[in-house]
Amino acid sequence: MGLALREALKGAGTASPNPIVGAIIVKNGKIIGKGCHKKFGGPHAEVNAISSCVEDPCGSDMYVTLEPCSHFGKTPPCTDLIIKEKIRRVYIGTTDPSPHSNGRGTEVLRRAGVEVECGVLEKECIGINEPFFHSLRTGMPLIILKAASSLDGSLATDNGDSKWISSEKSRKMVHRLRNFYDAVLVGRNTVEKDDPLLTVRHCRGRNPVRIVTDEHLSLSPDKKIFGNDSGTIIITSKTVTETSETKYKNKGISIIKVDENNGELDLEQAFRTLHSYGIRSILAEGGAAMFSYLINNRLADKIVLFLAPKLIGSSVKFFSGSGIELVSDSVSIEDVKYKRSGVDLLVEGNLRYSD
Amino acid sequence: MGLALREALKGAGTASPNPIVGAIIVKNGKIIGKGCHKKFGGPHAEVNAISSCVEDPCGSDMYVTLEPCSHFGKTPPCTDLIIKEKIRRVYIGTTDPSPHSNGRGTEVLRRAGVEVECGVLEKECIGINEPFFHSLRTGMPLIILKAASSLDGSLATDNGDSKWISSEKSRKMVHRLRNFYDAVLVGRNTVEKDDPLLTVRHCRGRNPVRIVTDEHLSLSPDKKIFGNDSGTIIITSKTVTETSETKYKNKGISIIKVDENNGELDLEQAFRTLHSYGIRSILAEGGAAMFSYLINNRLADKIVLFLAPKLIGSSVKFFSGSGIELVSDSVSIEDVKYKRSGVDLLVEGNLRYSD
Repeated sequence: MGLALREALKGAGTASPNPIVGAIIVKNGKIIGKGCHKKFGGPHAEVNAISSCVEDPCGSDMYVTLEPCSHFGKTPPCTDLIIKEKIRRVYIGTTDPSPHSNGRGTEVLRRAGVEVECGVLEKECIGINEPFFHSLRTGMPLIILKAASSLDGSLATDNGDSKWISSEKSRKMVHRLRNFYDAVLVGRNTVEKDDPLLTVRHCRGRNPVRIVTDEHLSLSPDKKIFGNDSGTIIITSKTVTETSETKYKNKGISIIKVDENNGELDLEQAFRTLHSYGIRSILAEGGAAMFSYLINNRLADKIVLFLAPKLIGSSVKFFSGSGIELVSDSVSIEDVKYKRSGVDLLVEGNLRYSD
Repeated sequence: MGLALREALKGAGTASPNPIVGAIIVKNGKIIGKGCHKKFGGPHAEVNAISSCVEDPCGSDMYVTLEPCSHFGKTPPCTDLIIKEKIRRVYIGTTDPSPHSNGRGTEVLRRAGVEVECGVLEKECIGINEPFFHSLRTGMPLIILKAASSLDGSLATDNGDSKWISSEKSRKMVHRLRNFYDAVLVGRNTVEKDDPLLTVRHCRGRNPVRIVTDEHLSLSPDKKIFGNDSGTIIITSKTVTETSETKYKNKGISIIKVDENNGELDLEQAFRTLHSYGIRSILAEGGAAMFSYLINNRLADKIVLFLAPKLIGSSVKFFSGSGIELVSDSVSIEDVKYKRSGVDLLVEGNLRYSD
């Protein structure tokens, strides 16, 4: 199953909004086939694994990270193919909780006499598809905060200088994250100040969709984020006029209009719309106001924080203005992982808000 | 030498202002004696090791973390005893850079025909005596910042609640630090708000000297820090009247008066005075104003930061108001070490200020 997991990751960034899946076929102790779900709408991992077989898969064992489908979607049911090819045993990482699946694939296989074992390396098999499971549970994309701060929580000096807080290694890792998640999100000020491209350059991969909040549509359409390296979506207020949208729409940029609450764009509304577009995960890259908004409105699900061994001591901190009165009501980071990233420390975990 | 280092640590907290030293005596592959410098003014490690010998040390090897002394101080020279006992070889961790030593001990031994090898596990042997080496180099005590913050750098909520940010394990470790360093330092506000004891309770050890800054001598002498668990020193302004000192002096509390610069007590002056009292290391435990003052005035030498996997988002951050304009001018943390401490992360390192 470890190999199937590794195989699954080959579809990262391109299978979405489908889950990533990997499959390995073993016969007489030898791997005879493997495959992944490479592209949304393309053949499933099971199909690719079977068609890659160097021997007849009849009587073999299949290891697959997610329960095989038993319905006609964009492709025919994988269970039919498994039965037809006379695969003897199927080891499944985890059940697919989608409404049309949810144990049905397992049942179909068992009824046809295929031995099935479910829950092999289940935690890992769920882990590689966090956005998929989150989306099924909540109807929302998974929101991941990505920040690079000094140990005192500063994102920049009081003058706005922020180049570079984190190490080269950490900055490279951000490109890998961009390749993994469907979209990146930044606030208007970040675009105005840094004019970032937000593409994947320091590793192989595809560019994420770029999303920027801009309440009054006041950003120049010449900013790099509006270039044609990837698609771009602006989240703006319902109050903006159609005329002001024209210059962006002419460049192929999409616009999502949402309500304002207390003078702030309602990003929850925007995220629901983005989910309906098939976006299952959004990496929020800044700046300070964006991070605080997402945490204070309980919209951030995960955090990926690069802490640099520096003290800057500015007031540009990545989180403030929470209004939290007691330490016991603070936002806790669960399943926290600490890893070195060059001289920096990478802290990852799930945000859990107090009741 | 590893065993000698471990032996040396038995004098931590009680040998100061002397360095801690450990010695092991080996004969025919067997440890026949060991000792440490347990108490300021007491016998040195070499003497204790020799007198603990279960066999005649004649012809043996000695491993000692610091160069043996060759002068009459509070005790007679260790070199004389080593020569007299006919110890054949002496392995020394590091040279003692004190003016009266500095290679002289090594020379005396060699001249008497004792084989000497210097620099064995030198980095570690220097590491256990940071305050001692720092004091010789600078004439100042080593200042260590100890803070417990959330990942966003908050020391407390905006209401001042700070119980508890760090884990029980981290809080226990603070008691071990208090036992290791000569003194602890807090600002007036911390005493007013938390009324801490600042003693060693959650591990074995002796209490450090407690130091509090109080510009106008306005703290109540009933605060716990003024109790008789340990000595206490107040750092105050030269402008306070003798009358206002009486209530503290009656309780045996010492007072150090310093100048004020821009309305702030000149702690560099205070630290020089404390050094002249024999204090070689000070653990600064807060609060936010104290930390920022010590960093901004380049007085802090080391940081020990417990980062809790929480987000508080208050404005009570452990470092702000630095006026640093460029990231390249920030305070860097060198030789940084990251360790887990329960669910928290412990970050330790040396502060290096930009030129």
